[in-house]
Amino acid sequence: MALIVQKYGGTSVGSVERMLSVARRVAKYKAQGHQIVVVVSAMSGETNRLLALAKNIQDSPDPRELDVVLSTGEQVTIGLVAMALMQVGLKAKSYTGAQVKILTDNAFTKARILSIEEQNVRLDLANDYVVVVAGFQGVDENGNITTLGRGGSDTTGVALAAALGADECQIYTDVDGVYTTDPRIVPEARRLKTITFEEMLEMASLGSKVLQIRSVEFAGKYKVRLRVLSSFQDEGEGTLITFEEDKDMEQAIISGIAFNRDEAKITVRGVPDRPGIAYQIIGPVSDANIDVDIIIQNVSTDGTTDFSFTVHRNEFSKAMEILKNKVQKHIGAADVVGDDKTAKVSVVGVGMRSHVGIASKMFRTLAEEGINIQMISTSEIKISVVIDEKYLELAVRVLHKAFDLDQERI
Amino acid sequence: MALIVQKYGGTSVGSVERMLSVARRVAKYKAQGHQIVVVVSAMSGETNRLLALAKNIQDSPDPRELDVVLSTGEQVTIGLVAMALMQVGLKAKSYTGAQVKILTDNAFTKARILSIEEQNVRLDLANDYVVVVAGFQGVDENGNITTLGRGGSDTTGVALAAALGADECQIYTDVDGVYTTDPRIVPEARRLKTITFEEMLEMASLGSKVLQIRSVEFAGKYKVRLRVLSSFQDEGEGTLITFEEDKDMEQAIISGIAFNRDEAKITVRGVPDRPGIAYQIIGPVSDANIDVDIIIQNVSTDGTTDFSFTVHRNEFSKAMEILKNKVQKHIGAADVVGDDKTAKVSVVGVGMRSHVGIASKMFRTLAEEGINIQMISTSEIKISVVIDEKYLELAVRVLHKAFDLDQERI
Repeated sequence: MALIVQKYGGTSVGSVERMLSVARRVAKYKAQGHQIVVVVSAMSGETNRLLALAKNIQDSPDPRELDVVLSTGEQVTIGLVAMALMQVGLKAKSYTGAQVKILTDNAFTKARILSIEEQNVRLDLANDYVVVVAGFQGVDENGNITTLGRGGSDTTGVALAAALGADECQIYTDVDGVYTTDPRIVPEARRLKTITFEEMLEMASLGSKVLQIRSVEFAGKYKVRLRVLSSFQDEGEGTLITFEEDKDMEQAIISGIAFNRDEAKITVRGVPDRPGIAYQIIGPVSDANIDVDIIIQNVSTDGTTDFSFTVHRNEFSKAMEILKNKVQKHIGAADVVGDDKTAKVSVVGVGMRSHVGIASKMFRTLAEEGINIQMISTSEIKISVVIDEKYLELAVRVLHKAFDLDQERI
Repeated sequence: MALIVQKYGGTSVGSVERMLSVARRVAKYKAQGHQIVVVVSAMSGETNRLLALAKNIQDSPDPRELDVVLSTGEQVTIGLVAMALMQVGLKAKSYTGAQVKILTDNAFTKARILSIEEQNVRLDLANDYVVVVAGFQGVDENGNITTLGRGGSDTTGVALAAALGADECQIYTDVDGVYTTDPRIVPEARRLKTITFEEMLEMASLGSKVLQIRSVEFAGKYKVRLRVLSSFQDEGEGTLITFEEDKDMEQAIISGIAFNRDEAKITVRGVPDRPGIAYQIIGPVSDANIDVDIIIQNVSTDGTTDFSFTVHRNEFSKAMEILKNKVQKHIGAADVVGDDKTAKVSVVGVGMRSHVGIASKMFRTLAEEGINIQMISTSEIKISVVIDEKYLELAVRVLHKAFDLDQERI
């Protein structure tokens, strides 16, 4: 008997039929004697519908009130999925984030989980209930409803699995696992049977979109066994996300090609090179709750340097405004320039640690196609480049081929 | 400066434009220095949409889970209305029933309010916030979400007004007050400037539908000044619901003709006339949470009597089943018969206390139209008859005319 947390995304609960299909899968697991916690997202399209309502009233909806509105999406799903579970003969009980309670900070629309009171859930599981928990949401210490931001339902699933000491957290989505890259761009892309947490982290943050990055961080931190599966297939083992220490895993130099279409780059030119300058630039951006991705600062020439970073395209104009109005003059920088028509492409793989020449192969491959590299950033297990967005698909295809990702791993 | 609770129904918040219109009205009151609490229903159509979703999964949706689903309707509205209030320049903050907290019993889908913790609301009002509270919902002592049943938002409004000691509770709806009868049936129907609590109680319970009956009971019990207004008109004083003690009020013998289309009558025939028999019949019906309206038992003949009562048409078959399967044999009754094609028409008015002949005038008027009376029930301020539903409109029209309700009160 195992305790399994199953998380279902919006398309997996997008209709009454889909919910009943979820219920039947849960019933199979229950018949095998497992305890099941189901974490659900809002029905597909619902969050966007609610967001549109809010934006019809306020261009920038008040964050506290927006969370009150958006959190109803998952609340509808938990009630309906609990009914579907009863309909297939199981005992079921739903919980909102506040009811669990999933305590978060009060950063409305992008809150972080602080703790989970899992006692009542555990008691219900012991009493043979399937427990259905609303993903994406929590409650702050003053009882305000919060949401974790888009994709936050994954985080809820993993955090609950950690709090309950679950044997496995299964993320059901509309794909059957993690691929070497997006099959819509490269038809030869293959499903990976396993991927390491570190690779997954890089893949997720770079836009593979199978799992939300914070959930992968959570899983790594609390050693939660995480599996990505398709809710549209009854069979299939998906992709298991392993700890790097597993030595049996299939090894390859490169695991996949990740990319992110929504990247915008900003450069602060002619920054006086003195201690604290990086903080003076990034601090105000961070204070405005804008997530920064790549940050690059090169060595200085003549006492000044250029400082570049990327943000999500939606936050480009807000970040530019902050830099131009609050930062540029204050630090004595020459200029602030930006481009929101860029994309990021990365090769990811733990194998590159012990293999030289990955970077040069990547750069050569892009050069052969005439793709100009605008920024480069590297870590131990990935190399990312920022390029003009129009070359994105081409870059992904040629890199996928160059690193033999269409071939089965040995 | 007054503290006013304003309750807006589903059509009053049925669109973004309507919500902004609500916000502008609130702003007018705020400009006059009043403290305002806004209680809202779900956007029109939303509760039915959610109910349909649930019924697509379970024919009889699990009550606990149904409340989880239905309560989201009002939760969406509070967030959006709070945004609308901010949009017109006010400070606003929303509360779900659980956040207030509005403590109820655990009778899911038809819970009753036990108490209201109004401290936080009071604090926000003192800090110049307009407080927006979700109607129709509460939370039981175990933290389960409950709903008060259809129309429960009125009850929330009145209960909050009572808890806060508000100066007035204004119920905004799609009509501009209480009429002598339904203007859709009798075009000459007039709006009443005032109506007594007792009359309003009878009018509401008899199906006038302007206010939900429980809210009127609440208002009477806690002496809440209640006013019905139209949210579609900027002017107009609506109908004030007064205490009978107000001696200045306009006096008339009859205030209005109320009716209820959804009545079903049930008769238990040949009931042995012994103590406790009424309880043995009504007890099981009540235990099944079926509301009973009129109850009639006539004097017995030969040691047996006929026992009749009416229920809402939707609960007719359930009630019949209970009586046939659980009651009839147990008490030794001869038969159980019923008819769900009936309607109830009532004349209501505190004035009839001191006026004889109202009943005979009513019966004569119906007789002249050939309308057969199936059941009669009276109280101090109303006379109700159950008739074949096909005569309903005719009965209302002739009674409205017979009692001169198309003439202004003197």
